[in-house]
Amino acid sequence: MNNTGQPRVLALCGGVGGAKLALGLTRVLSPGQLTIVVNTGDDFEHFGLPVCPDLDTVTYTLAGLSNTELGWGRQDETWHCLETLEQLGADTWFRLGDRDLAIHLSRRSLLDNGDTLSDATAQICTRLGIEHPVIPMSDEPVRTMVETDEGLLSFQHYFVREQCRPEVNGFQFNGAAEATMSQGFRKAISDPGQSAIFICPSNPFVSVAPVLAMPGVESALHNSPAPVIAVSPIVASEAIKGPAAKMMRELGLELSALGVYEHYGSLLDGFVLDEQDRGLTGAFPHPGRLHCCNTVMRSLEDRIALARECLAFASALSGREH
Amino acid sequence: MNNTGQPRVLALCGGVGGAKLALGLTRVLSPGQLTIVVNTGDDFEHFGLPVCPDLDTVTYTLAGLSNTELGWGRQDETWHCLETLEQLGADTWFRLGDRDLAIHLSRRSLLDNGDTLSDATAQICTRLGIEHPVIPMSDEPVRTMVETDEGLLSFQHYFVREQCRPEVNGFQFNGAAEATMSQGFRKAISDPGQSAIFICPSNPFVSVAPVLAMPGVESALHNSPAPVIAVSPIVASEAIKGPAAKMMRELGLELSALGVYEHYGSLLDGFVLDEQDRGLTGAFPHPGRLHCCNTVMRSLEDRIALARECLAFASALSGREH
Repeated sequence: MNNTGQPRVLALCGGVGGAKLALGLTRVLSPGQLTIVVNTGDDFEHFGLPVCPDLDTVTYTLAGLSNTELGWGRQDETWHCLETLEQLGADTWFRLGDRDLAIHLSRRSLLDNGDTLSDATAQICTRLGIEHPVIPMSDEPVRTMVETDEGLLSFQHYFVREQCRPEVNGFQFNGAAEATMSQGFRKAISDPGQSAIFICPSNPFVSVAPVLAMPGVESALHNSPAPVIAVSPIVASEAIKGPAAKMMRELGLELSALGVYEHYGSLLDGFVLDEQDRGLTGAFPHPGRLHCCNTVMRSLEDRIALARECLAFASALSGREH
Repeated sequence: MNNTGQPRVLALCGGVGGAKLALGLTRVLSPGQLTIVVNTGDDFEHFGLPVCPDLDTVTYTLAGLSNTELGWGRQDETWHCLETLEQLGADTWFRLGDRDLAIHLSRRSLLDNGDTLSDATAQICTRLGIEHPVIPMSDEPVRTMVETDEGLLSFQHYFVREQCRPEVNGFQFNGAAEATMSQGFRKAISDPGQSAIFICPSNPFVSVAPVLAMPGVESALHNSPAPVIAVSPIVASEAIKGPAAKMMRELGLELSALGVYEHYGSLLDGFVLDEQDRGLTGAFPHPGRLHCCNTVMRSLEDRIALARECLAFASALSGREH
């Protein structure tokens, strides 16, 4: 809680899991109280179009347009362009839906007109009726590369084309060392009135690590008066979605919420783990920094409840510190 | 007829009208006997994608995929991407269908991989089962600009966005003076065994003029042993389709098949005009260079019949010359 009595929150997030908590937070916090900063390490150019999978997942989620059946992409999607690309012998491993294509075309046009990715994202969000600020981590390209037993793969080649099949040895974030935080991200992370910084339950290695890899992010997190709180994406030794658990196994990390906590290390002031993992809490080095609650977000109510739990935990941690 | 006894034909064409005759020619001539060279002056970049309206009209027509209901674009088209672009506030004056988009995406990808426009077109044609060579006039950009009472407009802005409404004063073909004929075009136009060169019933000012504006094209036509024969796109003082008649009026030209003939001037060895204009033939300076037949192509049979008429006329003209 800052001195206005109104919490101000920065949420760092990747794709699906992060977007769920972000949605919950938008139902609890006003647009002025919440900044959602999104990983762009997954971004890539496909057919000359700027595809931003995490930004779009967050955008579709907040706009109520996400395809809950598929678990990715837009609702009411059709695939006529993709079918035709197939007939033309073009690459179809990345499943571009007809409606989804519009966001990439629109972004191409905005970027070509000189907009930054932040500007373009803001315009798209406004058009989709999203009031809470959704901000790319950087306006400069950062590209996640996956070191695998089959060589170095760009993230989408690993994730979509190869379906996360190759064994992972490590990651590279091309461009991260030279990238600067977007203006909105820099403003939010260095805001002395920030009440909490949440690391959403996104993949620590490919959704959160690219954000942290940019110069100044880790130190800003350390220096922030706000508690930095991660929500475990690992519940009962499994990832809710995506390759996080497979990656932890392959990287030789402890496959549990504790493994996630240890991965983030001294970055965290607090850690939210699932009720199902309450039995693990004894093994954590700082039990006072833990909060157990339901983190599995099936319904909108679950998302809102987790948002409230996180906010209350942040408030409790802040109270304890002061 | 060349000395092999097999006619070899070069057809220069623009969009819809040209594509109809080109289709007729493909039903009469084998792939080795016909080269179809297409105007690229209409091409433009839209959302970063290379859109080639005349090439695509010819391609869709030859592949049996053209949208006969709309008169442009692909059959069985859907508009989900375009609807979504509209919601996103993006430009929608150029009606990109979901299936049509695939050809532009595919071409973007091929060009980005280093293919020439000729290569990309050949690949797309192969995929669509087109056996006759369809060749862009150049692999370098030529961009038709329309001088109007509302200023200089790029062709698609004039043609699609403004629906040909502004009054036309003239044309510019940006890049034409520096452009070189594509290899396939150069080969066909300088082929000493060529039996006929047809200027299809396309708009003389915006479909044919950009082709003629490139260095070497007019002189190659003059030097070719093959008769150069245009088919009038104006029938009974009206254009079958498109703004040709409106342009002729605004440019102060005689709005008739004779006006078209005079526009092409000394370039032509022969001219095909519609039966309906037989009454005009007395006014032509060289009645021996004329051939009257049905040029209005409603059915596939009409297209084939006109192709045969053109071939017979070319053969007659050649016989007369020798």
